[in-house]
Amino acid sequence: MSLIVQKYGGTSVGSPDKIKAVAERVLGYTRKGHSMVVVLSAMSGETDRLIALANSMQEQPDTREMDVLLSTGEQVTISLFAMAVKAAGYDAISFLGDQVKIMTSSRYTKARIKSIDTEKIQNSLDQGKIVVVAGFQGVDENGNITTLGRGGSDTTAVALAAALNADQCEIFTDVEGVFTTDPNICSSARKIERISYDEMLELASLGAKVLDIRSVGLAKRYKVPLHVRSTFVDTEGTWVVEEDEKMESMLVSGVTYNKNEARITISKVPDKPGIASKIFIPISDAGIVVDMIIQNTRAGEMTDLTFTVPRTDYVKALEIVKKTAAEIGAEDVSSADNIVKVSIVGVGMRNHSGIASTMFHVLSKEGINIMMISTSEIKVSCVIEEKYTELAVRALHDAFALEMDEQQ
Amino acid sequence: MSLIVQKYGGTSVGSPDKIKAVAERVLGYTRKGHSMVVVLSAMSGETDRLIALANSMQEQPDTREMDVLLSTGEQVTISLFAMAVKAAGYDAISFLGDQVKIMTSSRYTKARIKSIDTEKIQNSLDQGKIVVVAGFQGVDENGNITTLGRGGSDTTAVALAAALNADQCEIFTDVEGVFTTDPNICSSARKIERISYDEMLELASLGAKVLDIRSVGLAKRYKVPLHVRSTFVDTEGTWVVEEDEKMESMLVSGVTYNKNEARITISKVPDKPGIASKIFIPISDAGIVVDMIIQNTRAGEMTDLTFTVPRTDYVKALEIVKKTAAEIGAEDVSSADNIVKVSIVGVGMRNHSGIASTMFHVLSKEGINIMMISTSEIKVSCVIEEKYTELAVRALHDAFALEMDEQQ
Repeated sequence: MSLIVQKYGGTSVGSPDKIKAVAERVLGYTRKGHSMVVVLSAMSGETDRLIALANSMQEQPDTREMDVLLSTGEQVTISLFAMAVKAAGYDAISFLGDQVKIMTSSRYTKARIKSIDTEKIQNSLDQGKIVVVAGFQGVDENGNITTLGRGGSDTTAVALAAALNADQCEIFTDVEGVFTTDPNICSSARKIERISYDEMLELASLGAKVLDIRSVGLAKRYKVPLHVRSTFVDTEGTWVVEEDEKMESMLVSGVTYNKNEARITISKVPDKPGIASKIFIPISDAGIVVDMIIQNTRAGEMTDLTFTVPRTDYVKALEIVKKTAAEIGAEDVSSADNIVKVSIVGVGMRNHSGIASTMFHVLSKEGINIMMISTSEIKVSCVIEEKYTELAVRALHDAFALEMDEQQ
Repeated sequence: MSLIVQKYGGTSVGSPDKIKAVAERVLGYTRKGHSMVVVLSAMSGETDRLIALANSMQEQPDTREMDVLLSTGEQVTISLFAMAVKAAGYDAISFLGDQVKIMTSSRYTKARIKSIDTEKIQNSLDQGKIVVVAGFQGVDENGNITTLGRGGSDTTAVALAAALNADQCEIFTDVEGVFTTDPNICSSARKIERISYDEMLELASLGAKVLDIRSVGLAKRYKVPLHVRSTFVDTEGTWVVEEDEKMESMLVSGVTYNKNEARITISKVPDKPGIASKIFIPISDAGIVVDMIIQNTRAGEMTDLTFTVPRTDYVKALEIVKKTAAEIGAEDVSSADNIVKVSIVGVGMRNHSGIASTMFHVLSKEGINIMMISTSEIKVSCVIEEKYTELAVRALHDAFALEMDEQQ
């Protein structure tokens, strides 16, 4: 008799028949006596259809109106789902973001959840109803509809689980869980049974798309046990939970990569105080997020500055940097967008030395040149040439013995 | 400098290009200095698409969830429209039913408006914004989404015009206005320039589909001047307004017909008190609305009872009546669904005698047998065989000289 929050993504509810199948799956839990809260995304393809409509209206669609538009996607799914449950002879009720007061900031298309009023949900659960909540959406203090951005439904689910003090939050998706690396690249990739919140945060920020990073952060803060699993098979997926001893005994939990990277280098920058801010403020003013930054001091009063930006912002960033370089008297700007960031993640790194050097050694043995390095307590990232992506991932996966079962 | 409420129906906003065209039309009024409130329906076809989705989920879709589903249609249109206005360089803001507190009863799919909070709308108008409101939808006192039923967007528009004390309410549709009769049947049908609320109410209740009858009732109660016109041409349509002298000088304003009629007769009913309720209570319990009722007393203690029901409810009603007839000892039940109700409407009837007899004379001259008659202060309806519909409509239109201009 648990209180379970389950979230089903767009591909899981992509057609009337799939919605019925999900309803049947949820009813399996109801029949066992669990109280169920279901968070749904828009049917797959619907959000893209709506965005295309918006783009046909306005070159840069107004963000407030965009949220009014996009939030209809989930509204359709939750009502259809409630009907499917009722057709099966059980009771259900759907709620929109504003009906259960999922209060957010007013930052349209990228709002953040501030609070949730659980009264209506709790009342409906007490009446034996399956509660169906629209993912991805909320309402600001002035009653405007907001959306949480891509992946927002994961966040809705975890926030609801936290607010309701649910026993667990299950994220149903189209993959079977979190893998040690991308199975499309590395055939020996293995599904991870348990992973810590911190490792999952690193994996999500480093390119793993299975979970929205905000939802992992929320789950960590409120200690919500998170279960990532497939809608289409019945096996257990990956549990994202608090760190335990077994996790610490693993050196590395996963290898990940991110191709949405581009590198920009400014050479022979006069090394004066305030130079870095002169370079980076115009970039952040343009809404571009800089990832890694490396500064190499040359002889004399010159320095080289290299940093990475999302490849999607590459052209815009380069333009800005060239302008700044001329202003501050830097000698040259070079750049490349054929790079990739390959990372290894594991809480075991905290207690084991030499993990980073093993990584560097593995890459050099394959003849791969490391262009940039960045580390944190539980990860090491290297920027390399994009063409080496698969080679590097497979070599690292092999070197850290990730194909082996955790039990061994 | 007026405050104008305009409503555009589904065919008027049926595609992105049409939405842009409507935005351009509204901006024409804005540029002249008018304050504009725009009420929109769902894009044509969208409501049917959503109903089909619901029907694929549940045989009789849950009405609460149906309203959650259907209300997305208008939500899409209003956001796209606001984007179109912004793309043209003007300011606009969209509001859902619950955002401007269009409070309704809780009768899902057929809710009635109780009140509207105009504060948000007024504030936005004061800021020079075009206000775009979702038609057809509201919210009940518990925060549940409701819809007003087919034609509900007309009612939203008139209710908003009344609440805002607007100077006029314009209903844009795919016909040019209210006609003296159906132009598809009678080539001399003429667009009416001005018609009274009462006449429009009769026309709407007698089968004219151009305006939702509830919206006309609201317009009458709050004295909202209503202008029915075409989205696709620029000419004036029909004004529905308070009665004036000129209208009274017209004998008949329009001829209308309704084919959604079926007749049921119970013969030789024992004429005792309480018999009528024994017959009609089971019918109304089944949700069937009886229209005309005629009782012919026979010699002795027997009576014949004839009444009409919507043809769509004919089979169900007949079944119920046959059961009742057996119970009360009536001799026979006969019925027909090949009938039509032809009506003439005009406030002039109040002051002119002989209109009804002229109608009967015209029909008999054409060899048309009248099966039932019903009258009110400003209309006369005759039930005749369906095959005579066109003949009767043309003969009546001709006899009352409706093809002539009102000015003459």
